[in-house]
Amino acid sequence: MTMGQDMSSEQRPLSGIRVLDLSHVLAMPYCTMILGDLGAEVIKVERPVTGDDARHFGPYKEGESAYFMSVNRNKRSVTLDLRNAEAKAVLRDLIACSDVLAENYKPGTLAKLGFSEQEVKAINPRIVYASICGFGHDSVYPGRPGYDIIAQAFSGFMSITGYPENPPTRAGASVGDIISGLFTAVGILASLRGVDREGQGQRLDIAMTDCMLAVLENAVVRQTVAGQTPGRVGSRHPAITPFDVFETANGHVVIAVGNDRLWEMFCQAVPQLAEALGDERFSSNPQRTENHADLKPIIEAWSRTLTSAALVEQLSVVGVPCGPVNTIADVVADPNTIHRDMLAAFDHPTAGHVVTANNPIHFDRTPCKAHRPAPELGQHTEDVMTAVLGYPSERVDELRSSGAFGQADSTS
Amino acid sequence: MTMGQDMSSEQRPLSGIRVLDLSHVLAMPYCTMILGDLGAEVIKVERPVTGDDARHFGPYKEGESAYFMSVNRNKRSVTLDLRNAEAKAVLRDLIACSDVLAENYKPGTLAKLGFSEQEVKAINPRIVYASICGFGHDSVYPGRPGYDIIAQAFSGFMSITGYPENPPTRAGASVGDIISGLFTAVGILASLRGVDREGQGQRLDIAMTDCMLAVLENAVVRQTVAGQTPGRVGSRHPAITPFDVFETANGHVVIAVGNDRLWEMFCQAVPQLAEALGDERFSSNPQRTENHADLKPIIEAWSRTLTSAALVEQLSVVGVPCGPVNTIADVVADPNTIHRDMLAAFDHPTAGHVVTANNPIHFDRTPCKAHRPAPELGQHTEDVMTAVLGYPSERVDELRSSGAFGQADSTS
Repeated sequence: MTMGQDMSSEQRPLSGIRVLDLSHVLAMPYCTMILGDLGAEVIKVERPVTGDDARHFGPYKEGESAYFMSVNRNKRSVTLDLRNAEAKAVLRDLIACSDVLAENYKPGTLAKLGFSEQEVKAINPRIVYASICGFGHDSVYPGRPGYDIIAQAFSGFMSITGYPENPPTRAGASVGDIISGLFTAVGILASLRGVDREGQGQRLDIAMTDCMLAVLENAVVRQTVAGQTPGRVGSRHPAITPFDVFETANGHVVIAVGNDRLWEMFCQAVPQLAEALGDERFSSNPQRTENHADLKPIIEAWSRTLTSAALVEQLSVVGVPCGPVNTIADVVADPNTIHRDMLAAFDHPTAGHVVTANNPIHFDRTPCKAHRPAPELGQHTEDVMTAVLGYPSERVDELRSSGAFGQADSTS
Repeated sequence: MTMGQDMSSEQRPLSGIRVLDLSHVLAMPYCTMILGDLGAEVIKVERPVTGDDARHFGPYKEGESAYFMSVNRNKRSVTLDLRNAEAKAVLRDLIACSDVLAENYKPGTLAKLGFSEQEVKAINPRIVYASICGFGHDSVYPGRPGYDIIAQAFSGFMSITGYPENPPTRAGASVGDIISGLFTAVGILASLRGVDREGQGQRLDIAMTDCMLAVLENAVVRQTVAGQTPGRVGSRHPAITPFDVFETANGHVVIAVGNDRLWEMFCQAVPQLAEALGDERFSSNPQRTENHADLKPIIEAWSRTLTSAALVEQLSVVGVPCGPVNTIADVVADPNTIHRDMLAAFDHPTAGHVVTANNPIHFDRTPCKAHRPAPELGQHTEDVMTAVLGYPSERVDELRSSGAFGQADSTS
């Protein structure tokens, strides 16, 4: 549990890197949040008045979006009305002094505003210009939108998730967005090494559909090498049995019996399975997999008599791999979650005390666990103009009166 | 589609970085594969005779594991029998000249062999020593195994995936492994910047359960802020309707109607929905969400009359976000998959032609799309001893006779 209202990021691995963040909603904001956790200075540019769409996604606390707060910590917020010529000049100055430009608008949006790849490179040839969209800027489907569910669906990921009797199933977390954000973070960090060495930036064109295809691993080779189109098999392993979710007296557990030796240990640890151990249908992994539908009720006749905790205890002491299927309530209260400092607690000026998931990368020398809360809209507009861009106060006043920060500027 | 049997990685962003890869199966091998794609030199150390467990996972081609090939391209393979004192000396020499040590054994395994954090740091204080395991090296559950399904279950991810009438559901791809591999890649790349600046390495202790908790985004704040434990709602969006999967004449599509304006456009584009547009139950998003069970059959009465392709065409021209739910066969054949160079084709010496998913990070200046195929077990033992470690041939012969490379050495 961390507080860190005013945590310095000087000692973090990415200190000295400035990220100009033109992103919204989830995929790229997740990427820039991770970069911010690691010490990069992230300047989020938002449109005046409404800001990032995610500021209007629930759940809310005291009228502030907790959704937004959970993916925008460690950033500063500047409002710029990019239809305004003065605001564009400010953005050009920000591009000139940034290491990374990160955005996930629909392809063409920034180019229309005067910030195409060529224009950005002309301002700052060292910048890494990273984009995320649904199908790629270089794509045969240039106009198609790129929501998480569309990427999970297009990539085949949904076709192999869920139970056969149900429709293709979306993962309950937005992995289409977040996996794309993680690949983009990898691409940005790798590109920065090239900048250090060669003094030249790079253009990153990340498609959510590509990223989801890249994580399918053996499903792709089952198709391309074995010629079998993988389907939905529920939670069980398609080739190892028992390796599945099982109902207990108060919830569910997973049990992962990876080989015949573990099968023996499992059956010996559970008196109710003594008969199964001698059963011809279950005598080897291929036979257990063929007869998985017979085996599951036998295991559940036992597992339903125990609480999840008691079952995990009984199998863990003999070394059979297993674990609870936690609810979100369970996992946020688990002692290991607390021990690993996996909850980040903020005191937000309006919302008060808010708890989100923390960064999972544990560094020993430069911890990256304490954070600044997500910014209020335009909270740092003036700071960035003066401290980052070095504008004199008259220039800031001029910009404000010109509407560059928006008519309803919230910075002063 | 790329070949690149002998692709040089000199121009890639991570050229000059050497990764000593003691990993197996999936989480860390995925991480080191991505680093290899980006130009790092990855030296995979495997136990003699059997090698990485993943060499024994199907599907196979000509007796070679396509599973292994799909997560081990761009690596070289060295066999070392780490019970042998001479082999340990070789590993120490490799540690001395590497930038990164990556491993995902059960906590304590490498320490028992003489390669604890302190011992590795004493050999090379600049090294980034990265580990992935289930619950963390620093954990309240030190002995628990860390399979993908255990991480998906423990983190709460499975509790929010799937249909309410089914048990908690594992995502069909091993996102517990792969997301952990991606966070680790981010951590390694960030740490390398610190090494460049301060000359000191870092210890990364990555827990798969932490990584999965970190990707739950709004599910965590729904719990901690709103006090509601999220459950399973199938593929639909919990707060936006219609935003779901729908059956068609030949498969499924997703349709994502994010607001009232899109709802109007949707109903106007589909004559069969004209009545729904005027229906009080569906007049606003909150009402559509409340009555989602009434609305879905109305939409499916129409969607089942069209092929997925025809439906996507009909809605796309009017700008309603939608897309096909592809099978794996569909996505590997899709024109955008080909256009984006998202299939990597290898000619493997034994297996012949093999196609896997490619790296999804598109760089313009230093493309990272063409690859070396995954290595045969011990294929590069001799090369690495002479070209990397600079051992004279007598020393290599000695090592071989001592059994350091294993009794059934396959390198000569």
